[in-house]
Amino acid sequence: MLRFYKLTIAYDGTAFSGWQRQIDPVRTVQRVVEQTAGEILNHPVICRGASRTDQGVHAWGQVATLETEKDFDPQRLRLAINSQLPPDVMIRRIEEVDARFDVRAAVRKRYRYFIWTGRERPLFQRHYVYHYRAPFDLGRMREACRHFEGRRDFAALQGAGAPRLTTVRTVFRCTAEPRRGPLVSFVVEGDGFLYHMVRNMVGTALEAARGKIAPDDVAGILASCDRTRAGPCAPARGLCLQWIRYECEMRNAKC
Amino acid sequence: MLRFYKLTIAYDGTAFSGWQRQIDPVRTVQRVVEQTAGEILNHPVICRGASRTDQGVHAWGQVATLETEKDFDPQRLRLAINSQLPPDVMIRRIEEVDARFDVRAAVRKRYRYFIWTGRERPLFQRHYVYHYRAPFDLGRMREACRHFEGRRDFAALQGAGAPRLTTVRTVFRCTAEPRRGPLVSFVVEGDGFLYHMVRNMVGTALEAARGKIAPDDVAGILASCDRTRAGPCAPARGLCLQWIRYECEMRNAKC
Repeated sequence: MLRFYKLTIAYDGTAFSGWQRQIDPVRTVQRVVEQTAGEILNHPVICRGASRTDQGVHAWGQVATLETEKDFDPQRLRLAINSQLPPDVMIRRIEEVDARFDVRAAVRKRYRYFIWTGRERPLFQRHYVYHYRAPFDLGRMREACRHFEGRRDFAALQGAGAPRLTTVRTVFRCTAEPRRGPLVSFVVEGDGFLYHMVRNMVGTALEAARGKIAPDDVAGILASCDRTRAGPCAPARGLCLQWIRYECEMRNAKC
Repeated sequence: MLRFYKLTIAYDGTAFSGWQRQIDPVRTVQRVVEQTAGEILNHPVICRGASRTDQGVHAWGQVATLETEKDFDPQRLRLAINSQLPPDVMIRRIEEVDARFDVRAAVRKRYRYFIWTGRERPLFQRHYVYHYRAPFDLGRMREACRHFEGRRDFAALQGAGAPRLTTVRTVFRCTAEPRRGPLVSFVVEGDGFLYHMVRNMVGTALEAARGKIAPDDVAGILASCDRTRAGPCAPARGLCLQWIRYECEMRNAKC
């Protein structure tokens, strides 16, 4: 009997060329997980991921699916795969799901972006934060963030190279909060994100934080649908995919 | 005029073969700092360090000295060196000191050791913690720690290969505190430490934490001066040299 599993995967993106398996034999998370799971299950494995995180982007809650005819207890399978995975990736959870579960049909995702606003460079955190050296005003950044909330056309924040049918997305929440020391945590939750959209949001909000644009200018930038008016794409290393929610989970049902 | 500078140095020990310059051209912190400072100052530089941290051990407050005839403002010199250092090492402070300042004459040092007591392995913290998979009782660990405090002969905790004239040291404070999630922070302050002494303290305290020995057995282990009775040397990656204090600083005087 074919079984379907939902995997929750965490990884340190530093040494990966992103999530997605590629034709060239580069080290991607998908390739490493598929290969390791395939060795445990003793058959070829395809993992379909919910988000194609870019090179250098981290994840705490990437979601992927896997099918097998093998009758493995999910928890045993998880421990078996984890024991063979390299130290920069791990499976946090495996649950059996219905054959109809669609990993791409997420209803809500949360991304977090760490900004290091100190003059001194970060040391132990250097792979997980963006060291922002320009002037930084948290109040202005927060004001800018408010303009991202709501159902809007985010074409102005879409990176080149991966056009979508529609550029309208809903952002449920977008905030910037101080953390320990010079660390600032930017958090955004939405029903989906365009290519480079979160990093372009961060880059744009930082233009407000440093005083190059007014926080209220963000409304006009979004309305223009003009990528050249928004801020630059912030570096990958500050970004982490925190979690992905599905409709079944919102109903507290089995997926 | 010859000037003397005291450098406070932080580094991520993961990719270094320890602090000390070696005859083989391996990557050590001392070599990297000396080379970089030498390029800025345009003459050969010798940095004398306060502690010879081992391969893989981190530092937030290593101290070293440097001499030069060049008339550089300390803050400018620091920024110039930092701009050329690799991302895993940085100079946190440079102060001019008296020619008589002796970097080896520290009066107090603090080391911290991070223990990850969760069943799941650490991901983003993996280079900075020891993942301890055995049963862990913080209360028992704390009881064990108390036995390290005081002026004692620590011969039982001295690693092989670097004998000292005397193995008597004073430990002012030794504690274990819970941190966020499954993280435990072991902290020890003393007037000096023998080779591998902190890591052997951690290994011994963990034997008490897991129930292999009674916390009060630590007193007898120390009294025996027998290395074979103490616990194993805990891995380098959990250890961080936090700070080093000098007599002049205790008096709030210029060093």
